[in-house]
Amino acid sequence: VRFAAIGTGLKYDDRHDVMLAELVPGTTVAGVFTKSATRSAAVLDCQSKIAADDDGGAAILVNSGNANAFTGSYGLASVIALTDRVADTLKIAQSRVFTASTGVIGEPLAHDKIIRKLNDLNAALSAGSAQSAACAIMTTDTYAKGSTAEVSIGGHPVKIAGFAKGSGMIAPDMATMLCYVFTDAAIPRPVLQEMLVHTVNTTLNCITVDSDTSTSDTTMLAATGTSGAGQITGIDTPAGQAFYTGLHHVLLDLAHQVVRDGEGATKFVELRVSGAHSDADAHRAAMSVANSPLVKTAIAGQDPNWGRIVMAVGKSGARADRDRLSIWFGDILVAENGWVSPEYAESAGAAYMQQSDLLIRVDLGIGAHSATVWTCDLTHGYITINADYRS
Amino acid sequence: VRFAAIGTGLKYDDRHDVMLAELVPGTTVAGVFTKSATRSAAVLDCQSKIAADDDGGAAILVNSGNANAFTGSYGLASVIALTDRVADTLKIAQSRVFTASTGVIGEPLAHDKIIRKLNDLNAALSAGSAQSAACAIMTTDTYAKGSTAEVSIGGHPVKIAGFAKGSGMIAPDMATMLCYVFTDAAIPRPVLQEMLVHTVNTTLNCITVDSDTSTSDTTMLAATGTSGAGQITGIDTPAGQAFYTGLHHVLLDLAHQVVRDGEGATKFVELRVSGAHSDADAHRAAMSVANSPLVKTAIAGQDPNWGRIVMAVGKSGARADRDRLSIWFGDILVAENGWVSPEYAESAGAAYMQQSDLLIRVDLGIGAHSATVWTCDLTHGYITINADYRS
Repeated sequence: VRFAAIGTGLKYDDRHDVMLAELVPGTTVAGVFTKSATRSAAVLDCQSKIAADDDGGAAILVNSGNANAFTGSYGLASVIALTDRVADTLKIAQSRVFTASTGVIGEPLAHDKIIRKLNDLNAALSAGSAQSAACAIMTTDTYAKGSTAEVSIGGHPVKIAGFAKGSGMIAPDMATMLCYVFTDAAIPRPVLQEMLVHTVNTTLNCITVDSDTSTSDTTMLAATGTSGAGQITGIDTPAGQAFYTGLHHVLLDLAHQVVRDGEGATKFVELRVSGAHSDADAHRAAMSVANSPLVKTAIAGQDPNWGRIVMAVGKSGARADRDRLSIWFGDILVAENGWVSPEYAESAGAAYMQQSDLLIRVDLGIGAHSATVWTCDLTHGYITINADYRS
Repeated sequence: VRFAAIGTGLKYDDRHDVMLAELVPGTTVAGVFTKSATRSAAVLDCQSKIAADDDGGAAILVNSGNANAFTGSYGLASVIALTDRVADTLKIAQSRVFTASTGVIGEPLAHDKIIRKLNDLNAALSAGSAQSAACAIMTTDTYAKGSTAEVSIGGHPVKIAGFAKGSGMIAPDMATMLCYVFTDAAIPRPVLQEMLVHTVNTTLNCITVDSDTSTSDTTMLAATGTSGAGQITGIDTPAGQAFYTGLHHVLLDLAHQVVRDGEGATKFVELRVSGAHSDADAHRAAMSVANSPLVKTAIAGQDPNWGRIVMAVGKSGARADRDRLSIWFGDILVAENGWVSPEYAESAGAAYMQQSDLLIRVDLGIGAHSATVWTCDLTHGYITINADYRS
């Protein structure tokens, strides 16, 4: 996979804002996208192309600074113009050009500015430019997010590498902001898609910064087949499981990096809910706690305010019994049997909350299902970024 | 109805924190309560008593500073001790004493401090003390919330008066924080309950400050029958409709006051969604916009960022078609047919957002159903209150 990044002045004057990834012929591509009812033209275009069983050369073009979302027929025209010219430039089929745009919603995308730089982008393509590609798609992100893994498939080393952007408007539903993962494994498209969906459901779909779901969420996985390892024919084969382990590592790592870089975040919080009546109930209760402004502000204030966790479980809609609920901060048992634990000392809870990485566990005490999600705190920084920055 | 308020030092040293309301024999009482799965002992006690067809003398006792929620068997013991002693003091049945507690969750309620003051409270009861009762139940509220209406029932004037508290943890589900309404109309309990449920569904259940639902939400309506007007036998009778109009006025007024006093709020926002496929979809889309941190911070920043409204409609789960969506700020058409309106000037939107009272309208363009909800902005003030204040 070769990458290039360039500055086109779409919104920012002094940084790269467009990245191009070129995928060799034989590459299979899988993708998951936002379930938003107001998704962008680029997402709709990718969704219409992703299911095709075509493994010719392919490309991914992403810009930051403008989401090209809610831009009506003009938005679709931009996508067509861009994919048309990228196909011409790289001599591939237009149906194999995938785009994404991230930034302000509702303003027309000046796609001509990008088209003017396509020859330069093409000339700059190199295998060593993944880092600058990752930087080019950032918006309010404070750092680029990348992750790699290497797994062994029938004795052949196979690489998996990905990058992502995302900091606010993070409550992925089938995907997160923008996330691209590449591997040199050989995997037929249906198997690749199944692997991606499975992995996203326990990684990117389990994070939230602010409960707001983007109109542009896109995660794509491309397998070039150039490693020399044998084809992976199913997720349940030994090779499939080995690859899945590596893919899960990369997507979980990227998901955590997105949360750590959550707008204004000062704390990284892992929330584990166990003892639930169903998997869905466990996820619902965990997300309710993770999205509660009162829980998130208490965490920002380093206040071991477990009463707000009780509140958030109660409002979640998950089946719960107040008198069977238990709560831990790390290994500290805080509440059990419907009340504060007799061994709990507020000073221990307060000391624990000073850490930057927190583990909060809730056991509902009524079933055997569990879920883990990740979130950050809600601080003055989030307000400053979003009351002043037009994103 | 006679009221009294007193300071018991539960949490605050220099203010009243307990209120008592005495209801004459013949009073019917209706109530709606939080649907939280972790609701408090006082809520459970009220729910068990409210359906009884008893119209003897009754009382309502409310304290602030401690929610007596998630306090296990001790919490229930506090409710029993309080209702027992209030019944003794006022010489009424324990089954007619309703309590509520608001404040910090998870700490035991020092009910002895309240019991010691019951004789003083009883001696202080007076018809003119509603205002001090309303003040005694405040927590982070910055002012007491009251409202009155007078309607004519068969030529007899009938009064309706109520007060409420609430500022944070406001996303009522069947009720809001604490709200008490009194009338001298004569209304049988089943009719009174039906009136209350109907009214709450379009008033208190349509507001949100921060999407967090309290464990103690309680709204009660008491009808003393002392006005001399004839009994109201049904909601669909002329007298029932007259009363309903007055009750709706009082509850909507109180709901708006709660939003205006939302923690850290600087803006009052009315959100109207029309053109929805169903009433539930309209409410879901409106609440999604009203609860979106990115919409609320844009409003705080006086930014006419309608793209975030598109995002919040998209994630709501309500049926929507991006290209049929229209958005107005007040009377200013901002977006239509999936894009910004050709007549829209950003300067007009920016000027509109400077106002303290805002109307945002969204038409989904796919049906005939609508909903209206009210919310406030999300500011640094909210973070300051909730990262530092243990509520």
